[in-house]
Amino acid sequence: MEIMQVTGSIVCSHRVGGLDHMNLRVLRNANGKVSVAVDPVGASPGNWVFTASGSAARFACPDPNVLTDLTVAGIIDFWEPDG
Amino acid sequence: MEIMQVTGSIVCSHRVGGLDHMNLRVLRNANGKVSVAVDPVGASPGNWVFTASGSAARFACPDPNVLTDLTVAGIIDFWEPDG
Amino acid sequence: MEIMQVTGSIVCSHRVGGLDHMNLRVLRNANGKVSVAVDPVGASPGNWVFTASGSAARFACPDPNVLTDLTVAGIIDFWEPDG
Amino acid sequence: MEIMQVTGSIVCSHRVGGLDHMNLRVLRNANGKVSVAVDPVGASPGNWVFTASGSAARFACPDPNVLTDLTVAGIIDFWEPDG
Amino acid sequence: MEIMQVTGSIVCSHRVGGLDHMNLRVLRNANGKVSVAVDPVGASPGNWVFTASGSAARFACPDPNVLTDLTVAGIIDFWEPDG
Repeated sequence: MEIMQVTGSIVCSHRVGGLDHMNLRVLRNANGKVSVAVDPVGASPGNWVFTASGSAARFACPDPNVLTDLTVAGIIDFWEPDG
Repeated sequence: MEIMQVTGSIVCSHRVGGLDHMNLRVLRNANGKVSVAVDPVGASPGNWVFTASGSAARFACPDPNVLTDLTVAGIIDFWEPDG
Repeated sequence: MEIMQVTGSIVCSHRVGGLDHMNLRVLRNANGKVSVAVDPVGASPGNWVFTASGSAARFACPDPNVLTDLTVAGIIDFWEPDG
Repeated sequence: MEIMQVTGSIVCSHRVGGLDHMNLRVLRNANGKVSVAVDPVGASPGNWVFTASGSAARFACPDPNVLTDLTVAGIIDFWEPDG
Repeated sequence: MEIMQVTGSIVCSHRVGGLDHMNLRVLRNANGKVSVAVDPVGASPGNWVFTASGSAARFACPDPNVLTDLTVAGIIDFWEPDG
């Protein structure tokens, strides 16, 4: 699982059916790489979170039929990035 | 899930059976990396999309027996890349 | 799915049972990274192909019990790499 | 599987249900990349461990319904990193 | 699948149950990246092998309940690395 920071949300009118109405967050990791994740926890911009990827992301939704490959698994209470 | 831009389509006469007649798009991410994705949404060149990879890509088709490892999951209404 | 070029085949006498007698190709992507893929399509050296990875590679064999994590999914009719 | 060193634990009050009360360790690999892993083995800071990722991480918990994508699979008795 | 060279074995007294008594090899790829793999084939230090990752690694064991994410799938009879 990776540690990332929430930078915002994404608006997406045309999406495949399997995503339902899940919230989509834009995340940035320590190296600046940007990803999109499903967020069942309710994180806010600025929060540090850790994310589950791969098949674990589907189990975290918690419906394994949701088609995400990255899901916010928890909000970290405190975290100080390196750089 | 990753944010990518559609750059075109791909013509491929010889393909394995499990791909059916799905549309294949060429995508480019913020770093310039090129990938091929199945597109059930109907994105056009220039569109910014986000993609599901791994086993989620198969569920997004929505037939999990389709053999894709990257599927266009949605078209982003607005997106301004960093670089 | 990734776009790669076939550079040759691999000879491998000692292999695990789950690979059967599948053809093994050596592929190179645009960055020069070398991979080995199962080839059910019949690509030749010099061909540009696109590959399915992860669990999709097993479905593409088309027997999902084959132990590959990279399978040639199609031969691209025309492709001009960037570099 | 990757070789990593335990650098600490993570405190996370808001987490998805599928993680139960599993211990979460912060790991660092040879290149300095930081990850979060579920730890069913009981590793301590400073230990060198090797980790299973992907669907194997779920099997290592050993409950495959746990939503981890990275699990500590063993503590290495002796290891001398390159750099 | 990736081409890697065996550099040694790993001794690991504390390991999760799902690994049984499988042999663990340390592998190095062309870029110098070090990984740990389960070895059901019996490779020796110096051998060039190719490896299956992800869910394919579990099928290669050949017990899909083994928790590996990287398995030696075959020993290459001859291979000349680039660098």
